Amino acid sequence: MKRLMKVMQVDLGARSYPIYIGADLLVSTDLLKQHIYSKQVLIVSNDTVAPLYLQKILDALAGLDVKSVILPDGEQYKTLETLATVFDKLMEYKFSRNATLLALGGGVIGDVGGFAAACYQRGIKFIQVPTTLLAQVDSSVGGKTGVNHPHGKNMIGAFYQPQCVIADTSVLATLDDRQLAAGIAEVIKYGLISDSEFFQWLEHNVEALLDRNFDALVYAIERSCQNKAKIVSEDEREAGLRAILNLGHTFGHAIETGVGYGKYLHGEAVAIGCCQAAYLSWQMDYLDENDVERIIALFKKANLPVTPPDDLSSDQFIELMAVDKKNIDGKIRLILLKSIGRATLPLEVDINLLRAVLDSYGR
Amino acid sequence: MKRLMKVMQVDLGARSYPIYIGADLLVSTDLLKQHIYSKQVLIVSNDTVAPLYLQKILDALAGLDVKSVILPDGEQYKTLETLATVFDKLMEYKFSRNATLLALGGGVIGDVGGFAAACYQRGIKFIQVPTTLLAQVDSSVGGKTGVNHPHGKNMIGAFYQPQCVIADTSVLATLDDRQLAAGIAEVIKYGLISDSEFFQWLEHNVEALLDRNFDALVYAIERSCQNKAKIVSEDEREAGLRAILNLGHTFGHAIETGVGYGKYLHGEAVAIGCCQAAYLSWQMDYLDENDVERIIALFKKANLPVTPPDDLSSDQFIELMAVDKKNIDGKIRLILLKSIGRATLPLEVDINLLRAVLDSYGR
Repeated sequence: MKRLMKVMQVDLGARSYPIYIGADLLVSTDLLKQHIYSKQVLIVSNDTVAPLYLQKILDALAGLDVKSVILPDGEQYKTLETLATVFDKLMEYKFSRNATLLALGGGVIGDVGGFAAACYQRGIKFIQVPTTLLAQVDSSVGGKTGVNHPHGKNMIGAFYQPQCVIADTSVLATLDDRQLAAGIAEVIKYGLISDSEFFQWLEHNVEALLDRNFDALVYAIERSCQNKAKIVSEDEREAGLRAILNLGHTFGHAIETGVGYGKYLHGEAVAIGCCQAAYLSWQMDYLDENDVERIIALFKKANLPVTPPDDLSSDQFIELMAVDKKNIDGKIRLILLKSIGRATLPLEVDINLLRAVLDSYGR
Repeated sequence: MKRLMKVMQVDLGARSYPIYIGADLLVSTDLLKQHIYSKQVLIVSNDTVAPLYLQKILDALAGLDVKSVILPDGEQYKTLETLATVFDKLMEYKFSRNATLLALGGGVIGDVGGFAAACYQRGIKFIQVPTTLLAQVDSSVGGKTGVNHPHGKNMIGAFYQPQCVIADTSVLATLDDRQLAAGIAEVIKYGLISDSEFFQWLEHNVEALLDRNFDALVYAIERSCQNKAKIVSEDEREAGLRAILNLGHTFGHAIETGVGYGKYLHGEAVAIGCCQAAYLSWQMDYLDENDVERIIALFKKANLPVTPPDDLSSDQFIELMAVDKKNIDGKIRLILLKSIGRATLPLEVDINLLRAVLDSYGR
């Protein structure tokens, strides 16, 4: 059964671009070439994804001057050093300012590739071909690119919008179960921050997503991208509203950095962080006890972890959370929930209450 | 005798900012604090400039949370590795997104500091305090930031505008003669590309600049910044016109990269490059022989080198020029002169003619 491709626009004035969602898109020569403006294309991928899909894209781009650079797979390689290897390739091939960088992979590849595209010759063209659910629903959309610092996630980067995002749902068939669940964490996040109806839909359909039901996946991707595109269009550079996309991320980033990049998948850390944020929201009388239970239950149903790692103390948490990008003058600020479907802007949190939550929830 | 500060606006919509030109500005608490929005300030400087001026700025900013990072002086340190040390400091001090980075130094400090400000947390506030003539008339204005790649100058960077540029003319008193002359190279460039009247003024006043006549220096800085601000305002991201600011730079960058960063000062390499570009323009019947002679004579009068290094072959030149940012699909494109005061947009140059010029001029 053939299915129509969905197209959605991220509305950012001169930097607007389409998101394409559908099956077998990464072999579509027409779609790809529509967004490439010279012969020079560098594909940035990793050693998990490249063996599966690199040749298909090379075939689709036959006739162009296509090179590739294959990075090791994992959050622990999202570094300035890895970024430098991408620059080395672009220099080695003497690629010009009108070259295109195509990021083929998950969130790490999109973030590193996008940042490389933002900086090489102060900016070349850039196409996102996300191959994980997490990247399709979140990291490929909105223009946040960057790398980690040893002491903080995503601390070095750029806002840099792609020419387009090509979310090929066929690739989700080869995604491993853990990666799939990690993507669902960010999907649930959209329900929590801005879409209570979607949250309810997820309560009933999360098994279908885990079973890789095609229609359910397409619906979840589309609805997630709609939520994200709306927020990003209103606040591209995170002057205000956009920060709500970071629900659970201050806790999550602390976990990723604290236990070492790559041990938790980003989505797993975000799942735990969303539960911690919900628990704190309850302590502050923003959220009902029943809502907190629903939230934790849904993440659990999606086979995601919901409690913080034992070997990360509350002191370490607070130390790591102190370098978050939402903070001002060293004060910790968090996104909290007023209800399911309604997030707050960043709020300065009482450090004693935060410590009490870190000491008690899931310990 | 007290002199009035000059203020000029770089007109870039929401990214517009002032350039202040005058004596003793870097000790002006009012001026500095007007452009700082939180307590956190990181001063980036080098080991030549910091001993002279760091304490003065620290005194001027008393009461704020000011930290500093002192980099080694020289073009050879304009690297990703140096950039990483700036990020390390910002992380070590847990500086927030509303922190300000103040670049106190020449072009290298401004470029590295500005790029660090562009990338840290995807962008923090940034103030340029240029301490060389070259930085005051050129590199601090217009938002080009970045670092070198081992195989190409300024290949990695960002367009990122400062909050303001504070050009304190008092600091030119301590500038060494070679640095002063290097700055005059970029001053002459403005005459060549867009201001024939200024070129004539320079023919009569270059000795006054070399003698550090205060009024002559202020006039040259102001007129250079006016020329640059006008061009940058029309074409911030170098889609067209802005490329003329690169007259002589493709040759110059090849020299800097080819002989090793730091052997020639940037302005010295640009002086040679402008002479090569003028000579090529003459070969293409764009420029009169008399004009080429006037151009070479003025650079010589400013104590600048006008011929390429013997140990850089024409083949090496062409190889190095092939990675310039103005190139498209690997074709070398150069800014040439139609007359003194009138530059061309980037033109694809016949490789045989280019080789003939490299083989003959100054050999």
